[in-house]
Amino acid sequence: MIDLEFFNNRRTVRKYNNNKISDSELNKMLEAAFRAPTTGNMQLYSVVVTRSEAGKKALSPAHFNQPSVTGCDVVLTFCADFNRFEKWCKISDAKPGYNNFQSFMTAVIDTLLVAQQFCTIAEMSGLGCCYLGTTTYNAPQISEILKLPKRVVPVTTLTLGYPDGDSPLSDRLSADAIIHRGHYRDYSDEVIKSYYAEKESRDDSRRFVEENGKKSLAQVFTDVRYPKINNEVFSDIYMEFIKNQGY
Amino acid sequence: MIDLEFFNNRRTVRKYNNNKISDSELNKMLEAAFRAPTTGNMQLYSVVVTRSEAGKKALSPAHFNQPSVTGCDVVLTFCADFNRFEKWCKISDAKPGYNNFQSFMTAVIDTLLVAQQFCTIAEMSGLGCCYLGTTTYNAPQISEILKLPKRVVPVTTLTLGYPDGDSPLSDRLSADAIIHRGHYRDYSDEVIKSYYAEKESRDDSRRFVEENGKKSLAQVFTDVRYPKINNEVFSDIYMEFIKNQGY
Repeated sequence: MIDLEFFNNRRTVRKYNNNKISDSELNKMLEAAFRAPTTGNMQLYSVVVTRSEAGKKALSPAHFNQPSVTGCDVVLTFCADFNRFEKWCKISDAKPGYNNFQSFMTAVIDTLLVAQQFCTIAEMSGLGCCYLGTTTYNAPQISEILKLPKRVVPVTTLTLGYPDGDSPLSDRLSADAIIHRGHYRDYSDEVIKSYYAEKESRDDSRRFVEENGKKSLAQVFTDVRYPKINNEVFSDIYMEFIKNQGY
Repeated sequence: MIDLEFFNNRRTVRKYNNNKISDSELNKMLEAAFRAPTTGNMQLYSVVVTRSEAGKKALSPAHFNQPSVTGCDVVLTFCADFNRFEKWCKISDAKPGYNNFQSFMTAVIDTLLVAQQFCTIAEMSGLGCCYLGTTTYNAPQISEILKLPKRVVPVTTLTLGYPDGDSPLSDRLSADAIIHRGHYRDYSDEVIKSYYAEKESRDDSRRFVEENGKKSLAQVFTDVRYPKINNEVFSDIYMEFIKNQGY
């Protein structure tokens, strides 16, 4: 087994200095990312590279003006893409049947494996990355800015650059909380309490609860960070968008 | 930039020898995989580990009896999981609002980033992996076998073991076919033709076309490997299952 130090110590980086990645290095890293596993070797993804100030500014509101968008060197939008494959089918006298949800999921899987292979390559190379979950919230705006055609849906975004200063290592649940042997063992209240105890007792968690005027850390998630109403609104938007894009 | 040799040469491994991974090594690799980026540090995934012969045999039909399932050392089923997080919310006087499609997608993203981080760690450690796309086809059967509760949905599966012999390096499209600068540039027929020319001219592709009695490589995909009717049937099954699981 390899030394797991790198993986155990990786961290998300949201602040970048002014050093630039060269286009040729970025290309080589992306090319290596495209070696990630892909369903039936169909490579059902595209990556839109945004390097210009104007391009980043245009994308920024779609990511709720998270500062890493305009503050990074490169924004990479990873899209599920059956457009290219279908065009190939059509010029090859083959009738594609990929206008459906299963095909969307297949492309989503391909897309995320590539994104994470890229993230690992970039981080190993001394770069810092941050995933933007806002991609599935504001897919219609992102799609308009990036001129995505039918059968192309943005799934995730990475901001990329050389780190400015240190970033904290996030806590994680103990692996026992995630791993199920043989079959899923559902959690009793006591077990859940013990798995989340460390997270809740952390200084940053306590500060988080206090600053938001909440009674528990979980309430910060349900009431402030990922509330039901937002999830519902963005569910409708994303689902409608996926259908409009022809899935 | 790191040497990209490892990433450029990785390959999917479907045949395994009899060497076993120890439980403690597997745990350490999974633990390092759980360091992958995750939305709001919610860790919206579970991994079910199947090592017993009986367990693999039970899963095999759900993966259309692909030989790597019973022929591997370990089967890992990666599941999108809001169950654990919701249970924590409920005991913390917080009202979860994650019974919707956006939350499902968030958990899917978390799940696939972890799966690919695990795959990289395993491959770097000399193990071989194979993703099973059948996971989204036969999610209801898999769920029954693995006793998945509400809000837990299998997304992908990895078979894992020490490689038996060499596996071929798959071809890939040129990176130019995948990368779009500034915005998406849609493909003309000529451009598509040039991007897929190398793939079509490969010996294994020609054999594939001939063996299947087809006129083009694309027809092997549309008529044999991923036909419309299958995609539609499995779309309905997966969508219904996701809803039944409470999303």
